[in-house]
Amino acid sequence: MISIEKATEIVLTNKVNLPIEKVNLAEAIGRQLREDLFADRDFPPFDRVSMDGIAVRFADFEKGQRAFEIIAVQAAGSSQKTCDKSGVCMEVMTGAILPKGLDAVIRYEDILIENSITTITVETIKNGQNIHRKGTDRKATDLLISKGQFISAAEIGVAATIGKVTLEVTKLPKIAIISTGDELVKVSETPALHQIRTSNVLTVQALLKQYGIAASLHHINDNEAETTLKLGELLNENDVLILSGGVSKGKFDYVPKALEILNVTKLFHKVKQRPGKPFWFGKTKNNKMVFALPGNPVSTFMCANRYFLPWLRASMNLSPFENKFAVLDTDFSFKPNLQYFLQVKISYAENGQILAKPISGKGSGDLANLTDADGFLELPANKTDFKKGDVYRLISYR
Amino acid sequence: MISIEKATEIVLTNKVNLPIEKVNLAEAIGRQLREDLFADRDFPPFDRVSMDGIAVRFADFEKGQRAFEIIAVQAAGSSQKTCDKSGVCMEVMTGAILPKGLDAVIRYEDILIENSITTITVETIKNGQNIHRKGTDRKATDLLISKGQFISAAEIGVAATIGKVTLEVTKLPKIAIISTGDELVKVSETPALHQIRTSNVLTVQALLKQYGIAASLHHINDNEAETTLKLGELLNENDVLILSGGVSKGKFDYVPKALEILNVTKLFHKVKQRPGKPFWFGKTKNNKMVFALPGNPVSTFMCANRYFLPWLRASMNLSPFENKFAVLDTDFSFKPNLQYFLQVKISYAENGQILAKPISGKGSGDLANLTDADGFLELPANKTDFKKGDVYRLISYR
Repeated sequence: MISIEKATEIVLTNKVNLPIEKVNLAEAIGRQLREDLFADRDFPPFDRVSMDGIAVRFADFEKGQRAFEIIAVQAAGSSQKTCDKSGVCMEVMTGAILPKGLDAVIRYEDILIENSITTITVETIKNGQNIHRKGTDRKATDLLISKGQFISAAEIGVAATIGKVTLEVTKLPKIAIISTGDELVKVSETPALHQIRTSNVLTVQALLKQYGIAASLHHINDNEAETTLKLGELLNENDVLILSGGVSKGKFDYVPKALEILNVTKLFHKVKQRPGKPFWFGKTKNNKMVFALPGNPVSTFMCANRYFLPWLRASMNLSPFENKFAVLDTDFSFKPNLQYFLQVKISYAENGQILAKPISGKGSGDLANLTDADGFLELPANKTDFKKGDVYRLISYR
Repeated sequence: MISIEKATEIVLTNKVNLPIEKVNLAEAIGRQLREDLFADRDFPPFDRVSMDGIAVRFADFEKGQRAFEIIAVQAAGSSQKTCDKSGVCMEVMTGAILPKGLDAVIRYEDILIENSITTITVETIKNGQNIHRKGTDRKATDLLISKGQFISAAEIGVAATIGKVTLEVTKLPKIAIISTGDELVKVSETPALHQIRTSNVLTVQALLKQYGIAASLHHINDNEAETTLKLGELLNENDVLILSGGVSKGKFDYVPKALEILNVTKLFHKVKQRPGKPFWFGKTKNNKMVFALPGNPVSTFMCANRYFLPWLRASMNLSPFENKFAVLDTDFSFKPNLQYFLQVKISYAENGQILAKPISGKGSGDLANLTDADGFLELPANKTDFKKGDVYRLISYR
């Protein structure tokens, strides 16, 4: 049995290298960029008017001129006009190219216009004011976004500006999620007294949907030959298997044995934690990963959030989850020498702290409790009494 | 010109009531539940064995018996067996129904088995141990999840357990996103010197994709008649219009006028903020909403995050964004009497606080800066000097 720190380290050092694929820009959100994005031109690409108003020669203003004839309008999206005489002005619009020969923009709020003559009503103006100069933000060929960055809406905008219709991103892994256990029936079926409906695989599938991954669902009965056959097929067809159940000490827990027969190398079995102690993790020679999670719903859910998703993010080359810490808002005790993942309800304090209120539930079978809580607070194994005000690491799932 | 507080209030009080639709369970993640979910049976539905091992009569143990003949195996998913004599035991598996007549489960770690005879190796056991009693977590007909709850992976699992193949959720609004401005060309085109590629509408579309909304994209040239005609058509076909640009003081900013002609009631125009001052917000008689955002990229992005998404969440009946607060990590000054949305890079301190480092960029046209930052810190209008250590409200967009 290993510590959660060791288990975490083993899981993360076994991240896989996923290949690159090209997707349409609108599909790229939430993915990892696999190419550097460079400015194709200066940002802004021209001396850009940044206020609606008039453009004048600053030298004219400095000489004391205040009334200017408007000789043209420079609209956004029109090619550059030229003002080749002094003493006149042009109306200019935000986003327009600055007319050649003019060098200060005065906003409508600071002028009066009557019969094509505009009068400046402010005492002072600055040379170059309200002009967003070519290349001020970025220069052509500047690196805008480095490969590796997570693509949020902000990155979509920058990619659009430089003309990227498609983006190279990390390919999504192909994942099969597998339930085990003869007690399970389909969601659409009515269980007999001793049966329950399948739920864990749907929970994990939903977690993956948030990463744009459409994982396939499978079920294996408690039968050794069937377990080996089916897992063999699924290993051939997928990059990752996530199993729920079949990894404990039960007579019909065939998963570890079947994986051994299939030459999946066990990297660990059992972690010093509650819930989720029987967690089994391994990989094949060609780097296909098997996360065999304990079948109790809280165990499956915690292990999927605490071990699988960080592995997925690492493999997708997304930034790791930020380390979050929360303040326990009431005293709590847990005696066994195991890391305890305490279910908590989160709130945010105005001083910037995250508060965690225990919603501990009735054990790893208490599925409904997951919907009352919204995270797990990681209470270290080497303590038994946890005090209000103590700060611990938090996994939040909402 | 109104304050951001007033603008926020007007936007949120104008949330719309979206109807209900039924979706498949696997599609329901990220949506708002519109039906109450009740337990269809007790949780657990039977006295459930919670450890692999043997089940005995506690009375036998109490009388001093330590060796028991194994007369049967109760597997998970098998119908309940009955033990009608004393002094014997059954092997039982996690998830199995407890055999009738037995009332304590002893895990494999605490027994020895030889030739169908098992010997208990621990000194004490408790009556009822390792049995998860019927109805302990929830009773049949108990309310499990209230209508209104956001559906995370945890809710998917609970819905599956009670046999919900479909869920009633809030319907997604139909949204059109519209760019304006003659300077814009398509992402796939090469702009002339005075032109730029469209990007804001793609940014906003990407924000909406995260809510499962596939918004349509449109462009309107700087022409009054075309603006009125096109906006009229789009108002007929959609629940919400989000515009980018055309709302300032420019000669070709036709949006407010066109909306007036179309009888869209102006709820406000201009907010005391930087960026995003010219923000226009209104609605039609039949509650179609128009968010006309200023066209500078940082303005559009900030207003979409700060005003539109909270409105969307309110209308989708998702919980509001949690109020987040962050600690400014360096002194900062901003003189104008406007609320300043400072672009910041976020990090998390081990004491649970969120830290915000200014990445202020070069104004509302500095699109690339959005990818260096990951949020906006809200610096109040009534101050000019902001000190390291001060705590302000944070909008994060990653």
